Amino acid sequence: MKLDKIRVILVEPSHPGNIGSTARAMKIMGLSQLILVKPKKFPDPKAYELASRADDILAKAFIAESLDEALIGCSLTFGMSARERIMTQTVVTPREAAVKIIDEYDQHSFIALVFGRENSGLKNYELERCPFQVKIPAIDQYSSLNLAAAVQVIAYEIFIASLGDRRLIKEEALNCATDEEMEGLFGHFERVLTEIKFFNPSNPRRMLPRIRQILNRARLDKEDVNLFRGMLVAIENFKK
Amino acid sequence: MKLDKIRVILVEPSHPGNIGSTARAMKIMGLSQLILVKPKKFPDPKAYELASRADDILAKAFIAESLDEALIGCSLTFGMSARERIMTQTVVTPREAAVKIIDEYDQHSFIALVFGRENSGLKNYELERCPFQVKIPAIDQYSSLNLAAAVQVIAYEIFIASLGDRRLIKEEALNCATDEEMEGLFGHFERVLTEIKFFNPSNPRRMLPRIRQILNRARLDKEDVNLFRGMLVAIENFKK
Repeated sequence: MKLDKIRVILVEPSHPGNIGSTARAMKIMGLSQLILVKPKKFPDPKAYELASRADDILAKAFIAESLDEALIGCSLTFGMSARERIMTQTVVTPREAAVKIIDEYDQHSFIALVFGRENSGLKNYELERCPFQVKIPAIDQYSSLNLAAAVQVIAYEIFIASLGDRRLIKEEALNCATDEEMEGLFGHFERVLTEIKFFNPSNPRRMLPRIRQILNRARLDKEDVNLFRGMLVAIENFKK
Repeated sequence: MKLDKIRVILVEPSHPGNIGSTARAMKIMGLSQLILVKPKKFPDPKAYELASRADDILAKAFIAESLDEALIGCSLTFGMSARERIMTQTVVTPREAAVKIIDEYDQHSFIALVFGRENSGLKNYELERCPFQVKIPAIDQYSSLNLAAAVQVIAYEIFIASLGDRRLIKEEALNCATDEEMEGLFGHFERVLTEIKFFNPSNPRRMLPRIRQILNRARLDKEDVNLFRGMLVAIENFKK
């Protein structure tokens, strides 16, 4: 899923390093459209340094004169703020915002994520331009994320939502051992462990179920079974 | 919910700025325990500058000489890596890791989140110390988050999980083995398997990582460790 309808808008960012880190945070999560509203210092080498391989996003970043200009064409707009909700605004979590963005993606030409200044965030009249306020959950005493960190969290949630129900980590294609192979292994364990007198003679079989549980839990593949079989053979050979 | 059993471990971080940003990312999500393994430059004013109000986390950060030292007492360990899974390790998403941490929180003394170097991440042998590999979903072409951004995403997921009453099916109460107990066991395996000539002399160490992976996957408890230690002692005694 392409996420190129989504604009990340930074309002008056002070530090070029944060602009670079924002680009990096965006790129890794598949976002590409960066708009800077009256940045204090941009372009700047520090931004490129921190962008790492996201310099293409910086190179095509759009410099806007105002938030109005940055929002042209946007029909779904989220303002980031740690403050309590402003007036009658709808406050959502990053996860709720992400699901909404992906659910409604086809219905919009452009979608905006508006981030405020490093020190003071968005002003009320800016936040009022955003029908949705996104509040990143955080501990109360200390509620301000670094700008690029906030972008990272939002971009991450959008990327996750864009993957949909697909399992995020591919189920490992295990070359699973068959039941017979496992039984062969447990039988071998039993013979060798009896021989080396590991089993308590008064209760010889107490240990075996536990070994069985452990190895079942580990979900052995065929190569794992061969490793243990080889080890048992080495023990047998050693005693001779 | 206090999250003070959770250690954020940075292995050989190069840039003090990243250490400061990590502290800030932690603090806002309620994490407080930072361990630095051989940091290149710390303490450093740049770290304090970027920590913002999280300077208390830096002030009490523990400097460890090795990953071993950092992991002492930890019985649930996650290694962050964007690489494809290493051998047969269990790979989870940040969200899955977070749910697991919160679900099992009461059962562990310490829980470790291990982050690698800025440029090269964790080495294989370091990742092998972590029964779980966490892979942050990202676009394929560009898969590396900035260090502090990765910490932010993981810390955010843990904080979210700590708020929720989402309960997956709980794994049975584990009396999990600690990192030292596991290392003791692997060391014992190595000595005995060398002695019985199980290891290929031309490549003596190829098998050990695999054993490590299998037993990590099985998530041994203390009694399981004792069982294997007993078995190894029986092999040693038998040869005499």
